[in-house]
Amino acid sequence: MSIAVIYGGTRPNGNTELLTDQAIQALEVEKVYLKDFNILPIEDHRHSESGFPDVNDDYNSIIDLILPHDILIFATPIYWYSMSGTMKNFIDRWSQTLRDSKYPHFKMTMASKKAYVIAVGGDNPYIKGLPMIQQFQHIFDFMGTSFEGYIIGKGSKPGDIKTDTAAFSAAKQLQNKLKGTL
Amino acid sequence: MSIAVIYGGTRPNGNTELLTDQAIQALEVEKVYLKDFNILPIEDHRHSESGFPDVNDDYNSIIDLILPHDILIFATPIYWYSMSGTMKNFIDRWSQTLRDSKYPHFKMTMASKKAYVIAVGGDNPYIKGLPMIQQFQHIFDFMGTSFEGYIIGKGSKPGDIKTDTAAFSAAKQLQNKLKGTL
Amino acid sequence: MSIAVIYGGTRPNGNTELLTDQAIQALEVEKVYLKDFNILPIEDHRHSESGFPDVNDDYNSIIDLILPHDILIFATPIYWYSMSGTMKNFIDRWSQTLRDSKYPHFKMTMASKKAYVIAVGGDNPYIKGLPMIQQFQHIFDFMGTSFEGYIIGKGSKPGDIKTDTAAFSAAKQLQNKLKGTL
Amino acid sequence: MSIAVIYGGTRPNGNTELLTDQAIQALEVEKVYLKDFNILPIEDHRHSESGFPDVNDDYNSIIDLILPHDILIFATPIYWYSMSGTMKNFIDRWSQTLRDSKYPHFKMTMASKKAYVIAVGGDNPYIKGLPMIQQFQHIFDFMGTSFEGYIIGKGSKPGDIKTDTAAFSAAKQLQNKLKGTL
Repeated sequence: MSIAVIYGGTRPNGNTELLTDQAIQALEVEKVYLKDFNILPIEDHRHSESGFPDVNDDYNSIIDLILPHDILIFATPIYWYSMSGTMKNFIDRWSQTLRDSKYPHFKMTMASKKAYVIAVGGDNPYIKGLPMIQQFQHIFDFMGTSFEGYIIGKGSKPGDIKTDTAAFSAAKQLQNKLKGTL
Repeated sequence: MSIAVIYGGTRPNGNTELLTDQAIQALEVEKVYLKDFNILPIEDHRHSESGFPDVNDDYNSIIDLILPHDILIFATPIYWYSMSGTMKNFIDRWSQTLRDSKYPHFKMTMASKKAYVIAVGGDNPYIKGLPMIQQFQHIFDFMGTSFEGYIIGKGSKPGDIKTDTAAFSAAKQLQNKLKGTL
Repeated sequence: MSIAVIYGGTRPNGNTELLTDQAIQALEVEKVYLKDFNILPIEDHRHSESGFPDVNDDYNSIIDLILPHDILIFATPIYWYSMSGTMKNFIDRWSQTLRDSKYPHFKMTMASKKAYVIAVGGDNPYIKGLPMIQQFQHIFDFMGTSFEGYIIGKGSKPGDIKTDTAAFSAAKQLQNKLKGTL
Repeated sequence: MSIAVIYGGTRPNGNTELLTDQAIQALEVEKVYLKDFNILPIEDHRHSESGFPDVNDDYNSIIDLILPHDILIFATPIYWYSMSGTMKNFIDRWSQTLRDSKYPHFKMTMASKKAYVIAVGGDNPYIKGLPMIQQFQHIFDFMGTSFEGYIIGKGSKPGDIKTDTAAFSAAKQLQNKLKGTL
């Protein structure tokens, strides 16, 4: 079993990353920082006769990075009560990969994975972040991915998250669980 | 009173646009197609000493287009159970505008507006689109914008939406309401 | 095809009932007013060795009234952002019926039905009523019942609902749809 | 500071109670088991000329038990994806107390309190229990009560909850927090 973390944040060592660090401490993980990749928004060609044209960006290289792993951790700051636009653009593009002959087993592969979400927000994230959690459930349901758990933390200024002992305790629990499965 | 429609879709004459057409029929509106603009993802510098650096893209020109209007209609296809990544990137950038000395009254101006959401999705949008509606409420609450209503339609293939008579009827109702306020 | 309406309200001719009247106008329906029945709260004996004891109240007679019908409309005022306690107690008791040898086909029968929800609330029901709609979806998913649609109306004082033209228009649409299926 | 726990379950030593035990261990709390009281469903007389008639049941005695306390813990099993009908009936009756001259300061008193929710369900409660959490937020927002946190646990058969180490860890965290405030 191996783990990839997909970071949606735009700040180095942001609160979401700090909280995730606790969950993956001492574990070997593939870290994917979406902000370091060029990801174009999807253009919806699901119903175009010629299908999706090739896109000249880094998206496929991210897919190549995560597909080999059994466990995916989506680590995103909560921007405006949802995942970052960067992470949303990444997920939107799955619609293309689902129809991409270069990835004939994309859905089946994703369906074999376990997923976690770690998210940190500043404005009552324990409540206002819940629609995002529901959306991740819908996303994983569609792909057949097993949504194994989520942690919501509260933080706004850099380092804020360190005072969220409940979130850190949950991350520690997750670390134990991940260790047990590796 | 004047109206701007902010389109988040990527397909010309997509289902969301067709449904929105019914709502704005015979009304004068400013149409803003986000796909025609270059909108970079936000980089979170809320807590950087030097603040947000200027960004070289088209984002500000969109803000300039919509700020003069009293009513904003956010028209987005439902991609992966939420607004399109393009629209999300647009909204994420508001965090920058809120701190931009070129827009000192951004929040106050947004707080004077009324907002509507029109969204079309393919996978049980009447239920699976609800978290997105809740997120728009949180967004508008933060800005002080009055969330006046939303219409969810069902459609996937081009033109599908035309068979959603309930959504079209709701759009017709909205048209009457908008006419009454102009 | 035949229709039963299950009313959760406690006020004669309440707003929910008025809105529902529009949806079922000129249709033959079985009207079940839960307030006219004595429904005891469930006592959870799912895991008792002896199972659920018989309960001396009117609950089973309601089940007998609704089971013959193909379409169930759950018409409830929104009390405290959810269905009325009366309707909740009614649904809670399904856990007992699912294990009741007098109703060996309860789940299978419910799974063959179509369901609608009509709900009226006073405090921004279009948004604050959405968690309740999601709960109904979960309930119907569990039973296998097809959740065909919902209408949310706004009203507090008696008759208020009459000014919610959008809700009435949606009820009229539903009426047409119901007519078409009978 | 003092604490009251309001139990919505119907099973002695049910999973919700076991999880709550961890949160309140070694703390002095007032325990209120709703199942031991007769609580009639509300009859909506908010708009009757003569107002709400007196109701001959135990509801007021529950209000008298909880009002003196600073912290209220709502501990409910998740029945059909929401609080138990018993707890719902209890909360529905608040509409009456808000207009009851015997409790002229009901809302103001509730607005001074802090609230927690502890809930255990069997069917993916971490996701399917979220609409209930949102409803509690709406309820507390209306009353002005501060919603300080919630714990969702998974369990169905008696004692199941003991295997939910993440929930127990969260309950332990809550216990520490409660201790700190007493």
